[in-house]
Amino acid sequence: MKHQKLFEKTKNYQDIKAMSIPELEELCEEIREFLLDSVSKTGGHLASNLGAVELTVALHKAFSFPDDKLIFDVGHQSYVHKILTGRAEGFESLRKLNGLSGFPKRTESEFDTFHSGHSSNSISVALGMKRGLEQQGDNSHVIAMIGDGALTGGMAIEAMNDAGREKNNIIVVLNDNEMSISENVGSIDRHLAKMRTSPIYLRTKGTVSTFFSKIPKIGNSLYKSISGFKSDFRNLFIGTNIFEELGFYYAGPFDGHNLKGLCKVFEQLKDIDKPMVIHVLTKKGKGYSFAEERPDLFHGVKPFDVEKGLTEGSKESFSKVFGTNLEQLAETNKKIVAITAAMPDGTGLSGFRYKFPDRYYDVAIAEGHGAGLSAGLAISGMVPVFAVYSSFLQRAYDQLVTDVCGMNLHCVFAVDRAGIVGEDGETHQGMFDISYLTSMPNMTVFSPATYQDLAYMLQEATERYNSPCAIRYPKGAEDPAVAELEQKFEPGKAQVLVEGKHVSIFCDGTLVSEGFKATQILREQGVSAELVNLRYLKPLDFETIAKSLQKTKRGVVMENATRYGGIYSMLSGFTTLPLLSVSIPDCYVPHGSVEELLSLLKMDGESVAEKIIEEFFR
Amino acid sequence: MKHQKLFEKTKNYQDIKAMSIPELEELCEEIREFLLDSVSKTGGHLASNLGAVELTVALHKAFSFPDDKLIFDVGHQSYVHKILTGRAEGFESLRKLNGLSGFPKRTESEFDTFHSGHSSNSISVALGMKRGLEQQGDNSHVIAMIGDGALTGGMAIEAMNDAGREKNNIIVVLNDNEMSISENVGSIDRHLAKMRTSPIYLRTKGTVSTFFSKIPKIGNSLYKSISGFKSDFRNLFIGTNIFEELGFYYAGPFDGHNLKGLCKVFEQLKDIDKPMVIHVLTKKGKGYSFAEERPDLFHGVKPFDVEKGLTEGSKESFSKVFGTNLEQLAETNKKIVAITAAMPDGTGLSGFRYKFPDRYYDVAIAEGHGAGLSAGLAISGMVPVFAVYSSFLQRAYDQLVTDVCGMNLHCVFAVDRAGIVGEDGETHQGMFDISYLTSMPNMTVFSPATYQDLAYMLQEATERYNSPCAIRYPKGAEDPAVAELEQKFEPGKAQVLVEGKHVSIFCDGTLVSEGFKATQILREQGVSAELVNLRYLKPLDFETIAKSLQKTKRGVVMENATRYGGIYSMLSGFTTLPLLSVSIPDCYVPHGSVEELLSLLKMDGESVAEKIIEEFFR
Repeated sequence: MKHQKLFEKTKNYQDIKAMSIPELEELCEEIREFLLDSVSKTGGHLASNLGAVELTVALHKAFSFPDDKLIFDVGHQSYVHKILTGRAEGFESLRKLNGLSGFPKRTESEFDTFHSGHSSNSISVALGMKRGLEQQGDNSHVIAMIGDGALTGGMAIEAMNDAGREKNNIIVVLNDNEMSISENVGSIDRHLAKMRTSPIYLRTKGTVSTFFSKIPKIGNSLYKSISGFKSDFRNLFIGTNIFEELGFYYAGPFDGHNLKGLCKVFEQLKDIDKPMVIHVLTKKGKGYSFAEERPDLFHGVKPFDVEKGLTEGSKESFSKVFGTNLEQLAETNKKIVAITAAMPDGTGLSGFRYKFPDRYYDVAIAEGHGAGLSAGLAISGMVPVFAVYSSFLQRAYDQLVTDVCGMNLHCVFAVDRAGIVGEDGETHQGMFDISYLTSMPNMTVFSPATYQDLAYMLQEATERYNSPCAIRYPKGAEDPAVAELEQKFEPGKAQVLVEGKHVSIFCDGTLVSEGFKATQILREQGVSAELVNLRYLKPLDFETIAKSLQKTKRGVVMENATRYGGIYSMLSGFTTLPLLSVSIPDCYVPHGSVEELLSLLKMDGESVAEKIIEEFFR
Repeated sequence: MKHQKLFEKTKNYQDIKAMSIPELEELCEEIREFLLDSVSKTGGHLASNLGAVELTVALHKAFSFPDDKLIFDVGHQSYVHKILTGRAEGFESLRKLNGLSGFPKRTESEFDTFHSGHSSNSISVALGMKRGLEQQGDNSHVIAMIGDGALTGGMAIEAMNDAGREKNNIIVVLNDNEMSISENVGSIDRHLAKMRTSPIYLRTKGTVSTFFSKIPKIGNSLYKSISGFKSDFRNLFIGTNIFEELGFYYAGPFDGHNLKGLCKVFEQLKDIDKPMVIHVLTKKGKGYSFAEERPDLFHGVKPFDVEKGLTEGSKESFSKVFGTNLEQLAETNKKIVAITAAMPDGTGLSGFRYKFPDRYYDVAIAEGHGAGLSAGLAISGMVPVFAVYSSFLQRAYDQLVTDVCGMNLHCVFAVDRAGIVGEDGETHQGMFDISYLTSMPNMTVFSPATYQDLAYMLQEATERYNSPCAIRYPKGAEDPAVAELEQKFEPGKAQVLVEGKHVSIFCDGTLVSEGFKATQILREQGVSAELVNLRYLKPLDFETIAKSLQKTKRGVVMENATRYGGIYSMLSGFTTLPLLSVSIPDCYVPHGSVEELLSLLKMDGESVAEKIIEEFFR
């Protein structure tokens, strides 16, 4: 990095407000350089942050944080905000254990008002904060910054429906980069597409002139500044759009990389006494050609070489194995259709999508609808397979309970990222699915330990069952050592992977690898542990479990999930023999590597072996 | 009932299609008479069904069910559909155990394609069915009938976003009666209000004439038939609306009580090759003056006198006690604000609403947003109290996990209708909340047995805590016998209500009444049972529990919820003493009275006493 003079200043946050536009423009370049340098070393979210540099700087110039409140939707686009609020140094430890979070985090800074992570909630939260501040006589601004992808989540529209009838002037900054993680789908996106190419547009219930005269201290200057965007004033009156119908004032679209223009827009629109959508067009990956070309690849990255860019990852993973197997099954089973909520790549469906475009439905970021759609498909006789991350499926809880399990419909949920996921932290750990899935009547829950398990389970779930099935599998790859063990699959049965005499280790598939390590460590210490792969979490194979306990007289339940409502709860009512629980304790799990976190939570093989020795053999 | 000639014919469903318009109009009157006569005797949903008579008859005239598919949103407006499909006789047993369900139910009739109950899912399901049928080469029509209230649920918009980009011609019939259970709120409703008073309107991407020429076999006749509604043809071109922006064709508004007009509209619009919204204006309670005047009172009714109408219920209940106590607390604690998702009356908030209109937020049918709004209010320093039914709070599962508990925010959830609720059946039983609430880190869960418990807990939750709290209480009234027992409240503690020596009965508050009955029956048989009121379900008061078990050596856990992830699961890992579980088994619970259902599930006092004798003292 050549010159970082201005960048240094951002340690003292107030200096930004004193900077001139040319200085801020230079600052933006420095930030971009820093982001690229830093994220290429640590990994993290790159493309969305490169796209939000000017936008974030302009917000910091126009508003007074932390008195004014900035709420990020999803939140992985908050890096620039972190840099501007004195956290640049923390980027060396980005997403590492005890390091800087990849998302806004209340405990990290007073400038982070809301711990984001999931999508489409920012407008609700902003409205709540605005109403709460008003109750206390505080007129600070509250801004929700939301991407065009997140806008399709129903909760965002629910919030706009509520906000749009009142005078609360929450400000929704629509950061429109024409993408979710993958490209957008759906009619709202199509509607936005029209708006993107329209002239800059401002509209109120009355005419534009009435509108201008209503804004204190601005009046005609508004036109002047906005004309910096080369808009045609005559077009300000044309059309209506969905935001106006939801009761919002709308202004835009503005060039999200024109810092000067953005600063003026925010300055001049921020005090309008109505909820407001400010539509800003940004380019994901802006300023780094590799990322501009393939923003999907550069959404979340591992460390990479800035000069060479990235190549598409070809590493095997549970997600990829799921995708490949589903494609194979779909060749012969014409009833199979696949569903994703805006994540074809992450869930391993990109191959399916190209092979069977007519049997593939991307519902946008809308998990509740995805589950309802699955219910309808199942009623009509198809076999829908909805591939979705564990923590995001939480958004379809009621649809699973009511629409799917309530009618005992044959829908298959491929629950990816189950258990500890690592670097994304609290909001992304898949720690609740065992609890919520097993509590639902009619639901069968599988948990594979290996790719072969997964392949078999997917076949079982799509072909042998006629009721709701969920398969939970972890982020990343199988453990080759476990894959080498005998893999005979018996429907409905748990599998004894290692026979033993002194203690039974019952593992949720996602933890079999750690369980296996424990058996090896224990063997060295003279303890013969039996390792049981609980392929079925519901219904549990009580027969195999009982047989094992009868022999060993004591057991450990390892589950990659919260202990509440999990397998240990089910088993402890079943036996009076001593049983230990290894699981995620009753707390949220921060970011760090999966290995570090498992060790921190004493869920790794070594800790489990130690615990077994301590509790049973000392 | 005077003449029921036509009505009799509806036993043979196909006859309807052969009837003339005048005959069908007469049939409508007969149906209305039957509904009033029948529901006034059995109780049930009245106003919405009286409003949907012509609309439902017209759908049956124009479409061919069950080949075509009709999906009701929410579903309590399905009575006319049931009558028309041969189920009139079943109305004597409406909502009674083993009798006719108050909602569409797949197991009841091939004409019920979807078991409705919860809101806003019909468009998702319809789209899924349409896509599934198309995959199989079946071009049957799929119709979602949705109320204007349900339209604000985000899932409905998520589904329209998905449907609107394709050629699937699902038909959304918007049954617009200008109400949820109470009056509507929000900007979508305001938008609809404008449309209600607009001239009849049809619009496509092109002009009206292009549109007409595209419709096979209809052409200019479309104008002719629609002009039966006295619309002004020149106005067909004006404006755009939210449905069009979501990619739908829109037609309406049509008079929902003009049978002839409706039949023509459906006949002529049903084959358009685009998703379509047909906007129909109906009057809740139509034809019965008492219900027309107070549709809210006549939404769900107990048996009543047709001549005299209904008076507003003043019976004490947990809901009312909650409302009154919240009002008292809010007098002194200015931070308290109340939130409802379109149910001010059912949740007991109507008093709060009139006393503190500025501190009351009705977010419409939008539980996810309600929870997100609560999070924002809590961040800003207020104390939000969100009053919501247990089964509807399921729709905010992810928001509770991520936005509320994830940040350990002080939001209070008044979880009404917890446990078995009775006549509304499967979709409304509050049987999952113990499981989902206790699995969330940071959440405190209370369960009151009496009004006094509830009052105390509400004070604790709003004033002493600074973290998420949920209070689960049942439908209906307290048991006076339990209320007479000593009611000393100690923070964090369970309470021994009856001391005993031989067995401990640990009760979730909603079942203390049944537990108390069990102790009385057991006493007569020489068994001294200790009754423990588990006021706190999380964290459990293990000290009191252990002390009791130490004395009695055996226990029973009674919980008004699914056994999975419940209190029994927590306790069975805590003790090796014998422990029985009394809870809702792993299935959905049908409709019937609460008493009947508790008895059916062996959760009533008598069954529990029997089970205790059998397992422990025989």
